[in-house]
Order: sequence, then C-alpha cells, then structure tokens
Amino acid sequence: MPFDKEIIIRDVKYFKPDGAVGEGNIFIKNDKISRITHSTSTDVKGDNVIDGRGKFATPGLVNSHTHASMTLLRSYADDLALMDWLKNHIWPIEEKMKRKDIYIGAALAAVEMIKGGTTAFMDMYGPNMEEVAKVTEESGLRGSLCRGIIGIFNGEEKLQTNIELFKNFNGAADGRIKVMFGPHAIYTCPPDFLRKIADVARSLGAEIHMHMNETLDEINGCIKDYGKRPFEVVEETGLLDLGFLAAHCVHLSDHEIEIMQSKNVRVAHNPTSNMKLASGIAPVMKMIDAGLTVAIGTDGASSNNNLDMLEEIRLATFLAKVATLDPLALPAAQILQMGTAEGAKAIGFKNVGRIKEGYKADIVLWNMSGAEWQPAYNPVSLLVYSANSSSADTVIVDGKILMQNRELKTLDEEKIIHEFNACANRLTGK
Amino acid sequence: MPFDKEIIIRDVKYFKPDGAVGEGNIFIKNDKISRITHSTSTDVKGDNVIDGRGKFATPGLVNSHTHASMTLLRSYADDLALMDWLKNHIWPIEEKMKRKDIYIGAALAAVEMIKGGTTAFMDMYGPNMEEVAKVTEESGLRGSLCRGIIGIFNGEEKLQTNIELFKNFNGAADGRIKVMFGPHAIYTCPPDFLRKIADVARSLGAEIHMHMNETLDEINGCIKDYGKRPFEVVEETGLLDLGFLAAHCVHLSDHEIEIMQSKNVRVAHNPTSNMKLASGIAPVMKMIDAGLTVAIGTDGASSNNNLDMLEEIRLATFLAKVATLDPLALPAAQILQMGTAEGAKAIGFKNVGRIKEGYKADIVLWNMSGAEWQPAYNPVSLLVYSANSSSADTVIVDGKILMQNRELKTLDEEKIIHEFNACANRLTGK
Repeated sequence: MPFDKEIIIRDVKYFKPDGAVGEGNIFIKNDKISRITHSTSTDVKGDNVIDGRGKFATPGLVNSHTHASMTLLRSYADDLALMDWLKNHIWPIEEKMKRKDIYIGAALAAVEMIKGGTTAFMDMYGPNMEEVAKVTEESGLRGSLCRGIIGIFNGEEKLQTNIELFKNFNGAADGRIKVMFGPHAIYTCPPDFLRKIADVARSLGAEIHMHMNETLDEINGCIKDYGKRPFEVVEETGLLDLGFLAAHCVHLSDHEIEIMQSKNVRVAHNPTSNMKLASGIAPVMKMIDAGLTVAIGTDGASSNNNLDMLEEIRLATFLAKVATLDPLALPAAQILQMGTAEGAKAIGFKNVGRIKEGYKADIVLWNMSGAEWQPAYNPVSLLVYSANSSSADTVIVDGKILMQNRELKTLDEEKIIHEFNACANRLTGK
Repeated sequence: MPFDKEIIIRDVKYFKPDGAVGEGNIFIKNDKISRITHSTSTDVKGDNVIDGRGKFATPGLVNSHTHASMTLLRSYADDLALMDWLKNHIWPIEEKMKRKDIYIGAALAAVEMIKGGTTAFMDMYGPNMEEVAKVTEESGLRGSLCRGIIGIFNGEEKLQTNIELFKNFNGAADGRIKVMFGPHAIYTCPPDFLRKIADVARSLGAEIHMHMNETLDEINGCIKDYGKRPFEVVEETGLLDLGFLAAHCVHLSDHEIEIMQSKNVRVAHNPTSNMKLASGIAPVMKMIDAGLTVAIGTDGASSNNNLDMLEEIRLATFLAKVATLDPLALPAAQILQMGTAEGAKAIGFKNVGRIKEGYKADIVLWNMSGAEWQPAYNPVSLLVYSANSSSADTVIVDGKILMQNRELKTLDEEKIIHEFNACANRLTGK
C-alpha cells in the first residue's frame, strides 16, 4: 500500500465550481482533493500545511491548444500574414529541429506554463513528440499530446509515429499523459487520408485534435478543392465521431455549427493568435449558445508570443464583449470556468478542473498582495481583469507541488534557459 | 550651482527613437539623458553605475488617459453596461469620496504604475485633484492633470477648482506636473458651458482633455440634442484650438476625422476599456493615416481593471490587426513608440518619451531573464508580445530612480496598500 501523502491548504479563498468564492481548508490526499472544510475547523494539522491567507485558490489553468516546442521560434518572425509566416519563416526552421530541440523547447514551455499557473495543456507538434511526453512526465504537468500529421508530405510515416506515441504514452505518468491523433488541417490532409486516420484512431479508441476553420483562405481553398466547407468535409471522414477537439473555429457557417453541435465537437478558442495573425474573431457566443464546450488556448509561442493563459482568458472575454457589443458577455466567473473545467473537458481529462472533493488536485494559489489586487472586493474579477500571471505563487498538479513561492520544484529553470538558448541560436544561426 | 547627479546605465540594449535596438551606455545628468556611448567605451565609472546587461531599456510608458483614484473602485462593479455602471454603481460611491480617498487612491495608482513601467500619466478626476498633484510630486512620476468638469451639476464651481489647480500646480515639481482643463464629455457639458471653459483655458494658455465619441449612445444623444456629432459641436466652442487631447474616439464620422486633422487633435486610445464596456473598436488605423497623434491609455481601474500599460499596448496592436484584418497593422516598434513618445506628446510634455541625448531621463529597464523572454532574438517584439509588466525592474523619471530591482524608492508600498484598503472599505461598506 503506498504511503498517503497529504497537503492541506488552510484558510484560503477558493473558486467554487459554480463560480462563487468559498473560504475554507482544502485537503489533498495523494492525487486528489479529499475534502474541503470550513476555515473555522481546527483539524488543519500536518507535515505539509500551506497557509492560504492572502491567496486565492483556483483550479489550474488549462491551455487547450499549443505547440510547446515552438517557444524556440518566439519573436523570430513577427508581424506577418499566416501563410507567409508559416511557409517562409516557421517551416524552414522547423525542418532543422532535432530531437533535443523538441525536448528543450517543451521544457522551456513547461517552465513558462507552471510559472503562469497553467497545469494542463494540449500539445500538437512534429517529430519526436515522445520528448514532449518526457517533459510532461518530468515536469509534473498534465498533458494531452498528439503528432501534428501533415498528410501531404510522408503522411503514412507521421501517422505511424502518432500510433507509436499512443501505444507508448497514452495513460502514462499515472494518467497525467493522454494521447490523441493530430491531423494538422484540411489544407494539409486530403479527405482520404483523414479517413485513414479516423480508422486507425477508432481502432485504438483515440480522440482527435485538429486545426479547423482558422482563416478565410483555408475555407475558400476547401470550397474550391472539395465544394464544401471544412467541417462538412471532415464530418464525412468519420473523424468527428471519435471525440474531436477543434482549434480556432474562427469562420463557421450556421450549418457547420449544427454539425459541431450534433457531434459534440469541443473547441479550443485562441483569441491572441487569431488577433495577432489577423485571422478573424471566432463566434464564441454562438458556439456557447449552441451548447458546445469552448475552452481557451494560447496557440504556439510564435504566434502569441507567450503561453500566458491568464492573459488569454482575459482577452477572450474582452473580445467576446466587443464583438457582440454586449458588456455582459462572458463574465469573469464564466471565462474562468472556460479556462479551467471546460479546458480539462476539452482536452480529454475527467475529474480535472474543479476545486471539488474527488477531483484531481490541480490547483494554483494566486498571491493577492500586489497593488493590482486592491481592494480585495472580488478575487474572481481581480484575477480575470486585473492581475497578471506573475501572481501565480504555488502550483499543484496531481497532488504534487510543482512550484511554491514562485520557485520551481521539478524543473531546473536556469539550466533549461541556458540549454534552450544554445539550441535556439543553432537553429536560427543567430 | 546645484550638484550634478550622474547615473550611468552600462552595456544595455535600448529602444532607439527610430524603433531599432541599440546597445551602449546611457549617461544621465540631473534630469536628462546627457549622452549615449558605445558599449565598448571605457569611461563608465561613477558612484551610480547600473549594470544593464540582461536588461532592455525603453522610454517610460505613458498612460495617456486614466482616473488614478478610481483604483478604489477596482472590481467593485464589473460586467455592466457603461451608463448603468456609471450611474448606478460608480457615481454613488464617488459622491462619498473625501480628500484622503483621492490621495490614497492616486497613491495606490502610483505604486501600480511605477511597478508596471509607467513613468507619466494623464489624469482626470473629481474634487481634490490637488491630492493627485501631491502624489505626483511625492512619487516622482510625471503627470498631466485636469479636473473632470461635469457641467450639468455645479459646473461653475468645478471650473473654478480647475482654474485653481492650474494656478497652483501647472509647471510644479520641476515641470513634472502640467495642468489641463477637463470638460468631462458632451453629455455632461452643454455647448455654452464648453465655450466658457474654452475662454478661461485660452486666457491661461491651458490645453484641454475631454472624453469624446466613446459610445453610440453618446453620439445619438448629441445628434438628438444638437443636430450634430460631438466633434462638430465641440469645434464650434473653440476648445479644439487650444491643444486638445480626446479620450476614446471610438465612433467617428469621416467629417469628424477631418476636423480632428485640421485641429491637430491628439487621441488617447483605450482598447481595454472600449472592449470591456463593449463601447466598440476605435478606428485607430484611420486616425493614424490621417496623421493624428494616437497614444494609448488604460482608462480608470474600474473599467480595465488595472493600470498596466504594457498590457494596453499589446491589446492595441492585437485589436488593430484583427479589426483591419491586417497582421501588419501596428508592428511592435510602432506601438511601443505610441506608448512612449506619442504618449508624451499627447499629454503635453516636450522632450519626453525617447532615449535620446537631451531628452528627459524617463527610462524603464526591463528584466529579460524570464522564460517568456527566451530566445532573445528581438527585445522589442518580446516586450510588446510576450513579457508582462512584472518584468519592469528599474524605473527612472527626470533622472531620479523611483524603483530598482522592483523595490520602490519614493513610496511606501505596504503602508499605502494598508491605508488604501481602509478607505475602500469605508466607501463601500465592505
């Protein structure tokens, strides 16, 4: 029988699943929240008691769409159009990436995510995704991973690596790692090939993550090639029946939203990337009104340019408000749920994303001492609308402390930054 | 003869006025940048040498529109429509504000601004603006101040306090304080009264700061009341001839842009406030194409909810990109110039906002050690698109160090936060 590890966070204000603010003691036993008691309770004794006064506890933030190792390309090529950026700047460097680059890029991403209060992420990238799995395992983060399969070049080989990734890592690290299949996009994967991916994923019981409807060029190209819009084409491949997380979803017809609704498609909304690359404004309120699970993602660090989920959550609510001219759109509590519970659901983890008995202990304590947290009327509103990610003080995933007082416990930040820069300089010749 | 004080920032990367990145030693004598030498120079000796390695020096950020003391109302009433928010939540609390509230609200704002790399601000608020002047003087910040004159209630009395503010504080604190006149808005100041303000301001040689064209309700009300749009009405009052800084400018006709152009109206663009309150998206690219000075502002902390200019700069470029569907809109160097040099020009300070010999020494050193600053390809892009305001390490205004290693030198942060919360709790009964 394994030894029970207990952490107690005492006298802390916390974000309740219903969006309200509670106050009490959170007991963590092994990987789970075992109970929550009133702060007047007297039984808060143990070897590992964290003083929660002056802190706000929320579920860990969930980044529902990123490409972790692209930290290597951060600020390498900015202020460009999507296709120019991809084809002339990003892809040529990616060609040169080796196994160790994928590892160190993801390791830097893990440092950045933990320091910003992110506890789980959905990652799609190229070869050597097992290095991202390794970083996920070592860092203590929760990660849902897939191989980004560009079908038009050596598609079979890439599909094979996604199969291997699934066989080797799905359910690994005590269930902290999950593997999906990652057809890249409709403009890089012909329908026949998508059908093939669907067959393989179905046989393995795997879910799908795919870029969908990101730009008008993509939509127009799809209509030109197949006479239909992307979701209409993808629906016919069977992919939508397997559990489907669609990144972006900026340009959608009403019929496509109906398809998404009927297939329970989950959405990763990436406001920064869509604004920075001028892709457009996703119809988030329409998707929510259709009952879809809408989560928030940063996209890769080369189109954002950070992995700061708190910033992303804030931008998502601002963008929804101005796009609909409704200041009541996505109030603070709702957008924080989208960045936590909905995110966990979107990327395929059960019992994650809520501060609730029986749920996984994925918790962030935000330090409320800064000027931007005063006056302390409403911690949810202060977190969503005022604080920045440097307020993340303590991060717990699966009951394990990954950061305390902003000090990382599982990763050597200085060493990672040093090795990361050596790789980045080699890749770009800078 | 006063003793010459010298500060040398050695071996630092810095933001050049043309948007490029230089590297060298910045010499500060008294209040000014006296010279900039190559980093290979050997004469960087003195009592006060700051090691600039691993830092990025930019001009201090300029917040071109805020209501500093409204920090007291931060997160007090969120997710509401502008008029409901103002009339039913903000104004009733403001009624209760006393002299000491204005002081402490502005003091907390000063803490927040300095810690976020802001060195100058344009402030408009109610009674007791001399308390904001006092905070500006004590904190070492640069501030352009005006009394927000709501003409429909005791307008004369308010105009009188703006006159006194001008007489007592314009040019005070070694020129760090400037005073403008602050007619609140077209819906709170009838044209006859605006004309009166114009006459008074003209006789004193004062400039004007006013909320303009913020919401569709404001435009429609103005057309209903006066048969014309706001800039058309205000033009006739003579106010635009005095040097005019217009906050918001969200909804503008082509004719209004022509008026602004002919009168050299300067603009304070407030993207967060406009998005959060769902006021709309300001036509920033149109105004820039018309040759207008467009600066960036946070608005008050009750509609933002922070005074974080770095976040505001980032949002301004993202919003311009997606609104015009042009990913090349407002690239990093340009938006940083808008947040610095253009800001200083907008709020009426000369020789401020550039790292250039002869300019005022208003400088921020950003710490580039965090994961979000790696790899260090392009510090301008990293600052604008990736870092957050907690990277502000050292802040210098008028040649005086206000913060070093994130420690405030002129203000007692802990004491201010304590007194601030006592005032906030008294005001709201919380």
